[in-house]
Amino acid sequence: MMFYLGLPAFSAVAALVFCYLISRWIFRRPMGTDRMKAISAYIQEGAESYLKQQYLVVGIFFAALFVVLTVMSVFDLLDSLVPFGFVTGGLFSALCGWIGMYMATHSSSRTAYAARLHLNTGLRVAFSAGSVMGLAVVGLALFYLVVWFFVLQRIYGADQLEHITSVMLSFGMGASSYALFARVGGGIYTKAADMGADLVGKVEAGIPEDDPRNPAVIADQVGDNVGDVAGMGADLYESYLGSIIATMTLGATAKFANHLGAVSLPLLLGGCGALASIIGFFFVRTSRDSQKALLFALRRGVYVTAALIIIAAFFLTREVFPSEWLGLWLTILVGLGAGILLGIFTEYFTSASYRPTRNLARSSQVSTATLMIGGLSLGMISTAAPVILIGAAILGSFYLSGGGSDYTAGLYGIGIASVALLSTLGTTLASDAYGPVADNAGGIAQMAGLEEEVRRRTDQLDSLGNTTAATGKGFAIGSAALTTLVLIVAFHNRVQILRPEFTISFDLLQPRLLVGLLIGGALPFVFCSLIFDAVGRAAESISAEVRRQFKEIKGLLEGEAKADYYRCVRITTKVAQQKMVLPAVMAVLAPILMGLLAGVEAVVGLMVGALVSGFVLAVMMANSGGAWDNAKKFIEDGNLGGKGSLAHKIAVIGDTVGDPFKDSAGPAINILLKLMAMVSIVFTELILSFSLF
Amino acid sequence: MMFYLGLPAFSAVAALVFCYLISRWIFRRPMGTDRMKAISAYIQEGAESYLKQQYLVVGIFFAALFVVLTVMSVFDLLDSLVPFGFVTGGLFSALCGWIGMYMATHSSSRTAYAARLHLNTGLRVAFSAGSVMGLAVVGLALFYLVVWFFVLQRIYGADQLEHITSVMLSFGMGASSYALFARVGGGIYTKAADMGADLVGKVEAGIPEDDPRNPAVIADQVGDNVGDVAGMGADLYESYLGSIIATMTLGATAKFANHLGAVSLPLLLGGCGALASIIGFFFVRTSRDSQKALLFALRRGVYVTAALIIIAAFFLTREVFPSEWLGLWLTILVGLGAGILLGIFTEYFTSASYRPTRNLARSSQVSTATLMIGGLSLGMISTAAPVILIGAAILGSFYLSGGGSDYTAGLYGIGIASVALLSTLGTTLASDAYGPVADNAGGIAQMAGLEEEVRRRTDQLDSLGNTTAATGKGFAIGSAALTTLVLIVAFHNRVQILRPEFTISFDLLQPRLLVGLLIGGALPFVFCSLIFDAVGRAAESISAEVRRQFKEIKGLLEGEAKADYYRCVRITTKVAQQKMVLPAVMAVLAPILMGLLAGVEAVVGLMVGALVSGFVLAVMMANSGGAWDNAKKFIEDGNLGGKGSLAHKIAVIGDTVGDPFKDSAGPAINILLKLMAMVSIVFTELILSFSLF
Repeated sequence: MMFYLGLPAFSAVAALVFCYLISRWIFRRPMGTDRMKAISAYIQEGAESYLKQQYLVVGIFFAALFVVLTVMSVFDLLDSLVPFGFVTGGLFSALCGWIGMYMATHSSSRTAYAARLHLNTGLRVAFSAGSVMGLAVVGLALFYLVVWFFVLQRIYGADQLEHITSVMLSFGMGASSYALFARVGGGIYTKAADMGADLVGKVEAGIPEDDPRNPAVIADQVGDNVGDVAGMGADLYESYLGSIIATMTLGATAKFANHLGAVSLPLLLGGCGALASIIGFFFVRTSRDSQKALLFALRRGVYVTAALIIIAAFFLTREVFPSEWLGLWLTILVGLGAGILLGIFTEYFTSASYRPTRNLARSSQVSTATLMIGGLSLGMISTAAPVILIGAAILGSFYLSGGGSDYTAGLYGIGIASVALLSTLGTTLASDAYGPVADNAGGIAQMAGLEEEVRRRTDQLDSLGNTTAATGKGFAIGSAALTTLVLIVAFHNRVQILRPEFTISFDLLQPRLLVGLLIGGALPFVFCSLIFDAVGRAAESISAEVRRQFKEIKGLLEGEAKADYYRCVRITTKVAQQKMVLPAVMAVLAPILMGLLAGVEAVVGLMVGALVSGFVLAVMMANSGGAWDNAKKFIEDGNLGGKGSLAHKIAVIGDTVGDPFKDSAGPAINILLKLMAMVSIVFTELILSFSLF
Repeated sequence: MMFYLGLPAFSAVAALVFCYLISRWIFRRPMGTDRMKAISAYIQEGAESYLKQQYLVVGIFFAALFVVLTVMSVFDLLDSLVPFGFVTGGLFSALCGWIGMYMATHSSSRTAYAARLHLNTGLRVAFSAGSVMGLAVVGLALFYLVVWFFVLQRIYGADQLEHITSVMLSFGMGASSYALFARVGGGIYTKAADMGADLVGKVEAGIPEDDPRNPAVIADQVGDNVGDVAGMGADLYESYLGSIIATMTLGATAKFANHLGAVSLPLLLGGCGALASIIGFFFVRTSRDSQKALLFALRRGVYVTAALIIIAAFFLTREVFPSEWLGLWLTILVGLGAGILLGIFTEYFTSASYRPTRNLARSSQVSTATLMIGGLSLGMISTAAPVILIGAAILGSFYLSGGGSDYTAGLYGIGIASVALLSTLGTTLASDAYGPVADNAGGIAQMAGLEEEVRRRTDQLDSLGNTTAATGKGFAIGSAALTTLVLIVAFHNRVQILRPEFTISFDLLQPRLLVGLLIGGALPFVFCSLIFDAVGRAAESISAEVRRQFKEIKGLLEGEAKADYYRCVRITTKVAQQKMVLPAVMAVLAPILMGLLAGVEAVVGLMVGALVSGFVLAVMMANSGGAWDNAKKFIEDGNLGGKGSLAHKIAVIGDTVGDPFKDSAGPAINILLKLMAMVSIVFTELILSFSLF
């Protein structure tokens, strides 16, 4: 027992202490010139005001659901601790987002200033900021889980694992709910600001990107922080927490001699991952000033982390499962391997170093239509590899962990693979989160008028960030598919526990299940449509404001008057907040309504249908968007006519279309899938009691 | 017995005789000026040469599969009649496509000439040509089915319904295979020619659409005939045949006292539909010269047909099922109602008379990117209604036909609903197929230099054709979803018949089934990507040829020299033929490979996964494409700046992107779903015998 909770607790504390140390190191670095400080302050202020507003809106949602859950627990439809778990889950998710955002906004000017010295110093600062977020997510998630697990064991008795884990499972709903708001709201904000700034500034007024005369320029920078950083932090906290809790639940019901071990293994694996990520951090450094060296440095960090986890898992599985260790250890290898391969496939399809994106760039020489069709086509065909890979991981982990002889062990193995896939999160998230920091550093360098060389270096950092961001997305999508699957199994188990007499039919030929499947298949499409719509409308509001300022503020375009940045930030915040509510509410209500109208079979259908089409759609969106972006960058690097050519103009359109694909709608689908599953689990008793069927 | 086969046989003959009479009437009409005759001859020649080439390629495929199937039947993996059924199924499908194409190419100039007199005469000719195709499809399908059913009853004994229908089911594979080639090949041809002609002619050389100086203009016209007509004819023949056969199979195993009646009801319903369509034909006429009157005329035809079927079905169900008639009659109403509502929803989302398409048109005033995102968003949200509608139809037909007390009766009911949905095909296909005839008529009027008024009238006919085409697509997709479902059930039954000792687990938590689901979900995306790619590459070949001719043929642009139309036709044919093979082969091999590697459960997963994501993707593609097209037409009608404005230029890009959505990839998905199911059924024994699991 001491060991089972002790290692994760120690790792959590170690990760958080290490975060503190890195952040102290970052804060000691110079912030740069006065102009840089002023711009930074604007961005910090804008990002904070956005998050505060978001807390308000989400707070109302959480308060309402807290009341609903409390009433349900009074009527014995829920364990009475669920409402508190829900709220704390949301709080921790919000905290992760806030830490990421705080670090990012305070590090970008420091990164820009550090890049004056050398590329490696720039990389160190940006990557350190990302690492704070990565390790904070891992540390806080482990801390949250260990504390609750300990408390629940005290309350219900140490051996009541089935009950304890089923209560913990419902806690994930809080994290997922907050994450959905953060991803959707932030995703709308960042792309609306980006499009709004570009449509009027770049296209109509003809001023360059990140030009201080553009009134939406600060909103654009704020967007990188609230969407790509704060949204992603909350998102991956939710993924990490969700996969561990879901696997713990399966561990409680799987047929292993060591039940406590099965429940604790996900936590132990997470703990090893946290420690390995701390060590991996020191391997991310480069002495050479090239893109290739940078990429190699980041990769080395991930590979070192993965290798350390493999070694640690060897001893861990032998300790916890003396007889079944080999299968489970191999399952962990499968999960880690799937994560790394997903990254490689994503890179192949989205990096301009390979054929697909280069061909796409070439099609922008023909016409806008061919670029559009080409980008969609690239995204569509890129879904084949991840689907086969995740399929192989499911089969591999199921049979390796003993699914051939016992079903429950096999399903538990799928869960372990999903935890293993995410166990390198401390490092992968760091290399993912460092991108927006570098992007912002470039913006600040531009606005503050630093030397050309600095912008060139931050551009190098940023461009690499695009590749790691795409890789990170592949990683998040793959883990989401596995976690959703595990959650669906957990839902099944929950129904069985609540209604032992009820033989739940998951037969595909059950017509209500089929209807759920078909409707579930459409849900991610409808969800994306709502987000696209929101981005479009928000961008129009911002364009109108930018146009108004150019017209009404005399001397703005000549650089003699100051733009009203704050107004743009406020408008974007308002629209993003309004528009994020509908998709989020849809995610919460869809499974409940489906269950009440057509029974638990339809809920299962809904979840599976959404997984089937959502997984593919998310991969397609991420890769189409990434490829369009990098095709544009490829041309900007001087290929196919370079900047200013017709091909470049067309490629910019591709990038603009791709932005909401990869940064707004795509990543939100992952959370949608898991949130729907979590909601189904929390409301199982309600659905069983009041369903029409 | 006499009645059960007599009515469908009579209807089949009546439909075919009526076809002959209409076509005689059409052929007696004048073909127009000499120039019109010459252009028509070019188009006929091009279309025929394309189809001949297609027969060659598909012939090789059929010959190869015939050998494979014969070998399989020698080794007792198949009934020995299956290879013959396969080939005849393909032949009839090809025949339907050929009849449609022949009628269309011989009617367009007659339509143009008739439109000189009055809008109604133009409508009559074009609609008559469409009706020939509609009734030929229905008549040939019924004829084929009745003959085989009769022959098989003689061979195996009249009461061996289970065996007979399972043999007939595998015949559908021939029709579906040919249809896939026709849809994919024709779809690539038509859009590649269209894009190729526009990219160089309209955009680079600045000459109008359908200008005789454009070397690809004939290929473009040919494309309308081989893709939109011949492809659609084969497609809907396959849909119609597939839904009837699949339902007959379920009838043989469903628990009804009157087994023969259950097997024959789909044929009887089809027969009633054929007769009702003949009567409905006479209701399509208008005396007023307006778009609204035209639409009303076409709608009246469909509604009259549907009403007659409802009345006939009342007597029919009472006769065949004296005790269960009410539920089955209501099931038929559900199917017909679903078909009509699908059309209405599709129209709402794709017609410029309603808000969604108007808003989309407005977004082309902002930027290309917003138009792209807007169109995708429109298509995505438009999936909600059809999914819910088909879901409701599944539940309605399942429970109405007695699924609550007996499962098999309920599944049979879903089949009956799909047959009912398609029973109005004679009329709906006519209003769908008349569009390309009108479109071609407009092209011929333009090229032959007829009066402005004629072009205006054919444009009116054509624009209406866009709406009916979109409606027809909604209809085809909805029926495909239901038919695929029924085929999946039939596959399940087949496994049970072949291996009674084998309890096939369709449990969603079976990991191999899950893997099938995920991979199946990606298949339609990969399939679309292959088609997009083919269209893009083919368009590039044609653009290059057009560019070459403009450069090398002196005086071509000045109208003094003649373009080499034939070369463009030949190049397009060649590329389309090459590129159609891979997607078609993928559809055939995917379920077999899946089955051999991961067992029958994985095959079921594959089919269901493809259905879940393919249904939604097909709806989205059809509606996004239709809305982009009509948004362009809305602007061309003088709104938002009209022709030549920036908004119009942007809207043209939207239309170009939308074309392969709605005419190449989208409709082919329907066939893909059914073909995969048919292949699974034919290869069941092989999969069961040689699967690794």
